[in-house]
Amino acid sequence: MIKATIITIGDEILIGQIVDTNSVSIAKHLNRAGITVAEKISIGDTATQIEQTLRRALDSTQVVIITGGLGPTKDDITKYTLAKFFASDFREDEAVAHHVKTMLEARGIVYNELNHSQALVPEKCKVLFNYHGTAPGMWFEDKSGGIVISLPGVPFEMEHLMEDEVMPRLKAHFSLHANIHRTMITAGLPESMLAERIADWEDKLPPYIKLAYLPAPNIVRLRLSAYDITDEESVTAEIESLFAQLNEIIPQHIVGFEDASMQALVHDILCQRQLSLATAESCTGGAIASRFTAMAGASAYFNGGIIAYANEVKCNILGVNAKDIEQQGAVSETVARQMAEGARRAIGSDYAIATTGIAGPTGGTKEKPVGTVWMAVATPTRTITSLRNCGTDRGQIINRAAAYAIEMLYKELKNNINK
Amino acid sequence: MIKATIITIGDEILIGQIVDTNSVSIAKHLNRAGITVAEKISIGDTATQIEQTLRRALDSTQVVIITGGLGPTKDDITKYTLAKFFASDFREDEAVAHHVKTMLEARGIVYNELNHSQALVPEKCKVLFNYHGTAPGMWFEDKSGGIVISLPGVPFEMEHLMEDEVMPRLKAHFSLHANIHRTMITAGLPESMLAERIADWEDKLPPYIKLAYLPAPNIVRLRLSAYDITDEESVTAEIESLFAQLNEIIPQHIVGFEDASMQALVHDILCQRQLSLATAESCTGGAIASRFTAMAGASAYFNGGIIAYANEVKCNILGVNAKDIEQQGAVSETVARQMAEGARRAIGSDYAIATTGIAGPTGGTKEKPVGTVWMAVATPTRTITSLRNCGTDRGQIINRAAAYAIEMLYKELKNNINK
Repeated sequence: MIKATIITIGDEILIGQIVDTNSVSIAKHLNRAGITVAEKISIGDTATQIEQTLRRALDSTQVVIITGGLGPTKDDITKYTLAKFFASDFREDEAVAHHVKTMLEARGIVYNELNHSQALVPEKCKVLFNYHGTAPGMWFEDKSGGIVISLPGVPFEMEHLMEDEVMPRLKAHFSLHANIHRTMITAGLPESMLAERIADWEDKLPPYIKLAYLPAPNIVRLRLSAYDITDEESVTAEIESLFAQLNEIIPQHIVGFEDASMQALVHDILCQRQLSLATAESCTGGAIASRFTAMAGASAYFNGGIIAYANEVKCNILGVNAKDIEQQGAVSETVARQMAEGARRAIGSDYAIATTGIAGPTGGTKEKPVGTVWMAVATPTRTITSLRNCGTDRGQIINRAAAYAIEMLYKELKNNINK
Repeated sequence: MIKATIITIGDEILIGQIVDTNSVSIAKHLNRAGITVAEKISIGDTATQIEQTLRRALDSTQVVIITGGLGPTKDDITKYTLAKFFASDFREDEAVAHHVKTMLEARGIVYNELNHSQALVPEKCKVLFNYHGTAPGMWFEDKSGGIVISLPGVPFEMEHLMEDEVMPRLKAHFSLHANIHRTMITAGLPESMLAERIADWEDKLPPYIKLAYLPAPNIVRLRLSAYDITDEESVTAEIESLFAQLNEIIPQHIVGFEDASMQALVHDILCQRQLSLATAESCTGGAIASRFTAMAGASAYFNGGIIAYANEVKCNILGVNAKDIEQQGAVSETVARQMAEGARRAIGSDYAIATTGIAGPTGGTKEKPVGTVWMAVATPTRTITSLRNCGTDRGQIINRAAAYAIEMLYKELKNNINK
């Protein structure tokens, strides 16, 4: 089994100033190719810590991928630390120098000493040419036989180098077996009840297939993983047949496969059945529309949405009755219902989702505390409503309210299919 | 200096199935209290790897915080591994058992053997009572004097335990000094030019104050950090005076402080000046509205928005001229302009932002390739427009278009203030 360590460098990670998404993307690339990530480590911009971590990573894994610390400023020390680690002098790479100069000139940036330093590379590395940025990637071969790859921390540049340079070279360098991961999405059973229901099935899994439970609000994902597989086809078939067995045990709880989100399931149904959707959002403030429009092809069914924060927008554009807002409050069943129906009408769609609630941190009352959200789904034949408490933190409330509302729509669509 | 290691456990992190945000939040908590995170490590659900990593972490740091692997199912092994590591038997915690039972009953879930196992805790730990979930946190004291804390992986539960249990206990246990981080946001100078401009200032920084450059699209953040400081007040004042010096060197490039995003800067201006905002989004599909409504207090100025995906919505609700769409295309300067002006009118606001573009992956042409985005800002006195190429990937295009449009609004607001 070829194992890898991912090392992300930067004090901003250790003080919690940024969320590290680079290592997620690198892990996906490696896994897809059959390289197993044994460990992910984040450390600061300190030479001794980089050297120690690198040494330890090379002792236990054959591939080490490092991101960050390749910028032109003084706090970027990765390149110099790697040169020292591999006892390498520097040389100027002409192709990189030319590229950096051209790139900066196109953006109207003066080429200076600091930029020039980006074209200096350790003699002992292969340069991974970075078309999208000024810091090249580097590929070192350690005397242990291990490979050390250094990539810039800018996500877009890192992604380009992983795809176009790193993965083709790793595949050529190692003889790789497959890592297989398949995920089934279940809904309606909490983790402990699900585990009880499928306990016999779980006990009979072969030792080379590992089961993981991944609980999330409203759903539990079940992942089957097999690592370092030479006969990919037969193990994939085996995993498929294991999932087919689950389909006998918990048929009504299986809602999808792989990492599809609830909105992706709705997306598929609306596309297949050529139905259209509109949104009317108050407390979720565009989060529901964003989830749909983030998916390629959303324009096939998503006509549009109204974010009705002010009451005037609820009344003037969605046609909510001002008197109802006055008497029942903007966060009420009748307003949620009128918003959904108003969105269907104003935007012209088959289905519409609406939310109105108190996202906080202020605005809560004893009767309607922060987190109270009314949601509604309007369909061609009826409008349904639901009241949910979505938590206490603003971000959490927005996310949960969006997730619950989309789930309501999903169930209603499934209902209509099954009829 | 009190140092910490954060260990996140779960194969889902190593195969890139989830983004780890828990460690970000834990790092923030620790830093704020003056505990320096030396390393963050993600490993799989394997007992030997957990034990080895824990041993190593205790060798170099005094605090180890572990998240994940506390669920009721067989793949959750953290609790059993920790009990073995500390050579501890299990006992049943009555308070936890009662809490789990009550919580599950309220949700209509059958209490079974698996749930019962959640009330079993190692004898040698202090229980950190988890009001929001069924898995309690655990606090161990190692014979080395180090503290090992195990928390559930569900973000909301982890957050509650960090805030209400872990931080008060750590503050009581250690005599802590301060970590100070201050961030200045600059715009308009790329990293290399900025570094050149402030080189003299950077050279004169005292050795206990560390400078970091954090480049992002359109902006570069400058962070000054000082660790393990006994005289917090005087070092904070020193950092403030260093930033005041920068204000002499690059006055026109400083746009804000701390981790404020461009939308937070706009948020502040709109609140201070009691101005209101509306959005009209096509390709960004709610992303702009979401960025504003995610901030507490947005309802003070954000009246609402129209997500105009279908052309009918652009015409019927925003009053865009159908003939212009036909002749110039939906992605055109005139449509962006009419959308912004239409949103101001339909929603009733002082300012409005609009976007219309091709988010891809399909729909591009030679003249208007994927990534082409027209954006407009309508103000009480004029409407300005801008054409930007926002990249090639759908997610990237949506994010950049949102960022550019908000930046346009920011500049326009600044302009109007300065006049």
